[in-house]
Amino acid sequence: MAAKLQGIFTPTLVALDERGDINESEQRRFVSWLIEHGVHGLYPNGSTGEFTRLTAEERRRIVKMTCEEARGRVPILAGAAEANVKETLGACEAYHGMGATAVAIVSPFYYRLAPDSVYAYFAEIARHSPIDITLYNIPMFASPIDVPTVRKLSELPRVIGIKDSSGDVAFMMRMIAAVRPNRPDFSFLTGWEAVLTPMLVVGCDGGTNASSNAVPEVTRKIYDLTRAGKIEEAMRWQYRITELFDAMLFPFEFPDGFRAAAEMRGFKFGRGRQPLTAPQHADKAALQSVLQCILADFGFVDAPAAGCAPRTSEPEQDKIEQLIFEVMSALEKRGAL
Amino acid sequence: MAAKLQGIFTPTLVALDERGDINESEQRRFVSWLIEHGVHGLYPNGSTGEFTRLTAEERRRIVKMTCEEARGRVPILAGAAEANVKETLGACEAYHGMGATAVAIVSPFYYRLAPDSVYAYFAEIARHSPIDITLYNIPMFASPIDVPTVRKLSELPRVIGIKDSSGDVAFMMRMIAAVRPNRPDFSFLTGWEAVLTPMLVVGCDGGTNASSNAVPEVTRKIYDLTRAGKIEEAMRWQYRITELFDAMLFPFEFPDGFRAAAEMRGFKFGRGRQPLTAPQHADKAALQSVLQCILADFGFVDAPAAGCAPRTSEPEQDKIEQLIFEVMSALEKRGAL
Amino acid sequence: MAAKLQGIFTPTLVALDERGDINESEQRRFVSWLIEHGVHGLYPNGSTGEFTRLTAEERRRIVKMTCEEARGRVPILAGAAEANVKETLGACEAYHGMGATAVAIVSPFYYRLAPDSVYAYFAEIARHSPIDITLYNIPMFASPIDVPTVRKLSELPRVIGIKDSSGDVAFMMRMIAAVRPNRPDFSFLTGWEAVLTPMLVVGCDGGTNASSNAVPEVTRKIYDLTRAGKIEEAMRWQYRITELFDAMLFPFEFPDGFRAAAEMRGFKFGRGRQPLTAPQHADKAALQSVLQCILADFGFVDAPAAGCAPRTSEPEQDKIEQLIFEVMSALEKRGAL
Amino acid sequence: MAAKLQGIFTPTLVALDERGDINESEQRRFVSWLIEHGVHGLYPNGSTGEFTRLTAEERRRIVKMTCEEARGRVPILAGAAEANVKETLGACEAYHGMGATAVAIVSPFYYRLAPDSVYAYFAEIARHSPIDITLYNIPMFASPIDVPTVRKLSELPRVIGIKDSSGDVAFMMRMIAAVRPNRPDFSFLTGWEAVLTPMLVVGCDGGTNASSNAVPEVTRKIYDLTRAGKIEEAMRWQYRITELFDAMLFPFEFPDGFRAAAEMRGFKFGRGRQPLTAPQHADKAALQSVLQCILADFGFVDAPAAGCAPRTSEPEQDKIEQLIFEVMSALEKRGAL
Repeated sequence: MAAKLQGIFTPTLVALDERGDINESEQRRFVSWLIEHGVHGLYPNGSTGEFTRLTAEERRRIVKMTCEEARGRVPILAGAAEANVKETLGACEAYHGMGATAVAIVSPFYYRLAPDSVYAYFAEIARHSPIDITLYNIPMFASPIDVPTVRKLSELPRVIGIKDSSGDVAFMMRMIAAVRPNRPDFSFLTGWEAVLTPMLVVGCDGGTNASSNAVPEVTRKIYDLTRAGKIEEAMRWQYRITELFDAMLFPFEFPDGFRAAAEMRGFKFGRGRQPLTAPQHADKAALQSVLQCILADFGFVDAPAAGCAPRTSEPEQDKIEQLIFEVMSALEKRGAL
Repeated sequence: MAAKLQGIFTPTLVALDERGDINESEQRRFVSWLIEHGVHGLYPNGSTGEFTRLTAEERRRIVKMTCEEARGRVPILAGAAEANVKETLGACEAYHGMGATAVAIVSPFYYRLAPDSVYAYFAEIARHSPIDITLYNIPMFASPIDVPTVRKLSELPRVIGIKDSSGDVAFMMRMIAAVRPNRPDFSFLTGWEAVLTPMLVVGCDGGTNASSNAVPEVTRKIYDLTRAGKIEEAMRWQYRITELFDAMLFPFEFPDGFRAAAEMRGFKFGRGRQPLTAPQHADKAALQSVLQCILADFGFVDAPAAGCAPRTSEPEQDKIEQLIFEVMSALEKRGAL
Repeated sequence: MAAKLQGIFTPTLVALDERGDINESEQRRFVSWLIEHGVHGLYPNGSTGEFTRLTAEERRRIVKMTCEEARGRVPILAGAAEANVKETLGACEAYHGMGATAVAIVSPFYYRLAPDSVYAYFAEIARHSPIDITLYNIPMFASPIDVPTVRKLSELPRVIGIKDSSGDVAFMMRMIAAVRPNRPDFSFLTGWEAVLTPMLVVGCDGGTNASSNAVPEVTRKIYDLTRAGKIEEAMRWQYRITELFDAMLFPFEFPDGFRAAAEMRGFKFGRGRQPLTAPQHADKAALQSVLQCILADFGFVDAPAAGCAPRTSEPEQDKIEQLIFEVMSALEKRGAL
Repeated sequence: MAAKLQGIFTPTLVALDERGDINESEQRRFVSWLIEHGVHGLYPNGSTGEFTRLTAEERRRIVKMTCEEARGRVPILAGAAEANVKETLGACEAYHGMGATAVAIVSPFYYRLAPDSVYAYFAEIARHSPIDITLYNIPMFASPIDVPTVRKLSELPRVIGIKDSSGDVAFMMRMIAAVRPNRPDFSFLTGWEAVLTPMLVVGCDGGTNASSNAVPEVTRKIYDLTRAGKIEEAMRWQYRITELFDAMLFPFEFPDGFRAAAEMRGFKFGRGRQPLTAPQHADKAALQSVLQCILADFGFVDAPAAGCAPRTSEPEQDKIEQLIFEVMSALEKRGAL
């Protein structure tokens, strides 16, 4: 039997070039950098990997280059959701052939399906897939997977875990209580790193956390400290990553904030596929200063030249404070104040 | 300038065969039947056409066969949403070449985008499309398009209308009030035939109504009566189509109820791409009897052999009543009662 | 049997004095003014009447003064919801004694009850009430009343109607389809005047419309025109009242916008019971100018001295336009431009 | 300065008699039992105390008898929300006079107010209250209190804490991050014991937990273990209380499940004020067996005579399993199997 999925899996961002095409060399460089910085596994074609904005062919290219670049150093959990069961099974076969460890399949989206239909969808795939399957529950974007459905699906041997991005700790506990007694090997991964330590405390096996694109060292440290029972120390880092997560998540369209932060670590993610209005471009520049300040506090980058305003733990407010701070600093430099 | 889009457009169902592949000959036969039964236009690749369950290539095939089969008899509004702006523009070009009248583009889905981003997405497409564009607002499935966004987008000449499936009559009025003064040619189509007459009364130009797959004559009649100012008579038909709409919509996963009803008109839609559990199959059989009863009242099909239970205007209740009715009838025939 | 409730019922605002106490003389003057301006009935202690912000004793005073002042000129539908069944029955008895025509009882709120519990609550009241009861469905504030529940409650003779503030035309049709065949005397009233004409077209008997506090003549006119089959003319007024409704509803906390507009008709509603922040006070002043412009177009009041900016049918946008317009006008007058 | 609120506060149930009136002697006996079983404080007139189903006078009686019976043994946090600011301030004064430690005030409900209005409401009360105030955030029932609003309100010295019943651990962290640096004395209490340990791990000071009405020993133990850093042992109890919480919460209307469980500890809570249908009565009996099984596992009561079915961690499923189990057991006893 395969080893249980555990630890921090990075739902990898996609590096594009300035025309919006996949930038393969940068993507490979990024994948290696993540592995070298301590993440336990990689999860291409997740929501962070903007799988819905790629073509079917691009999704395959992404998994292929990830598997090749990883060279067996870490397990690969490949996002395999396609337009329907048949196409998804085709992706399962392809990713199996590429050497992926398992696939992750998001619950059906666009249409909001009832629990029975969600079950039927996953069960049909699980009965024919040549590769292990992780369910992916993200109720803000896709049909919710409820506890009885997870329990019934856990009776199928190909289903080996669930990634849950609800951020609801009690819901995670309910799933663990319903499944673990009969399937101790079943893996529970949280996609909501704002509560990574609490999720690990209640029994999660790890996380697939977008923040690890920008600060893989920190998600790893939180995981290690919590696993070692150093809860108070873990919580100190947890509060800091929650601040960063909020700053990357709320003021931007997902996953632009995560792209912006990861770029500060030395990568070029290029022109995103969702166009921005001119005011959004301006706003993004202001928010990047706040991200830079947070990353500077971690010691990963230099602070902005103008310095950093005190932060308030409210991302939108921080943006305004930082803008004012930078304007005042510029005026001062020119002797205007 | 092109003629304003108006009247009833059928968001065409997709005929599949028993393996789940597109059944082209049946699809063509269905398209012609719809035209012959009075719909004003066709809308392939809508939600009813399960565009998200088709591959990109299949979506092109569907539009191609629809345009060919229509042979200019009615306008074609082709659903052109693809994974991103570039792919969507590719589809716009292709459908323009195939002779589509305009394209319909659903608001970005999966991610729920803010109004500014929805604007940026449509504006980018509108600036480069070779074919006129209809916005498609379906807030239960995709990022909502709000009134200020519609108004701003209506300033772009390529944007010629909106299809709205919210079913919110006041929202439709707000859009009309905001746009019509400056764009009298802008077309407002409702996708919610439960309120087709009220929508026409407040100023809609027509509808893209899934029910017209099953009863094109009735949607047409409601349109004609309302346009002619015969509101009371229109409302009598409206109440009947609302009952049918509810019976097709609520007890099934969309669009299975519409497929079931349209099959009774003599078409084979094949095996759907969303698998069903065994209990769902059984339930579907029970519900089909209710649909048959409703269609029999319209005179389009024969009633079930066992006859029809009185209906309650609550679809789930009607299913149970009809089941009991059929069982009692069977027992009676066998002399058991 | 009592006459069916029909026509426009005003959910009357509460006149307070500057200390926030009920201003009885102003309230009585307002009640008489409404009757003289054509409303068919009065509905004290509704959401517009801020019943939850009154004490139990104040709610009784309000009904008492309304009944006394009406002197039988119009029917009174008295809001009778209290803390529990026993207290609500006490109010029913009291209002019966005061001469109310019927009571309206909002679905249980705070806790969100399941349909069975909503049924149990109303059924218990209906079995013991000495006065006819109208159900009040307002799902944005209270436990929703669904179609099967309305149908079952309509079997109780004391339940004579429903006031629905969902604004959902299809839902209203579903209720009418489920209830009217067995209870032709059952009254359906809409609380959402943004769609008053469409609601009357589908078969509503009237409305309890907050806007009639400010423009009783217009709600009455829409009712009369629609009833007379003059739909197009009714719709012209409908679009105008929808604009006013939106301007009163969205930029203010409910029912402050309705209070602001009704004050322009010559009444003093005093200091509201929900305190405002200083920025909210400033904002309210700006919005009042827009309301004044809309009411001036109706001919009910004079336009602001500075004149009116063109309106956009987006209330928040209109506020900004009007502010700019007034500032420019002031600057011009001072020769600054 | 007063001591910081911390530990487990019981939002006390209300004992009624068979007519539905307050049963004062039972209520007093219950209050003393809770104190003797280790809860740190009492919170009368919370949601569990059905404050909205009591009259204003009854709410005062409840606080009076709680304060008298507690005799200073534990702090009393008295729910003081009334119809409006003036009435609420009246309750604040009364409860101050009765010896309450502080009051808890739920955010305005029925109307859903914007953050500015929520701020204005609490600020007005805080400026005039003679007693310290705890905010009460319960977004499923009342206007949500967001992080910036909590931060601004924490600048008012009378505001000493917040009780949050959202169950959202990340939200709790955001509040703590925003407020604690400037107000280390500010108390954060969770009302969602499904995640009591995780909430304490992230820094909460305690909880106001309905479950402590039924199992005060267990909530206390979880608190003590977590505070002592014995997280794994705390989590074992946490899983058990989450199972009990779910079984009390989901299959019943709130707070009937908590009443049912607390009754098994030897108290009579009488006839609830929300009437039940006959099927609801039957359903409740079945669910009580499941509760009895859970409480028997804790050792607080005897198991049902028929024994207990294995539980599945899905409350509705457990009810059915237990029903079948009891029926089979009865048949066996009669020799029918």
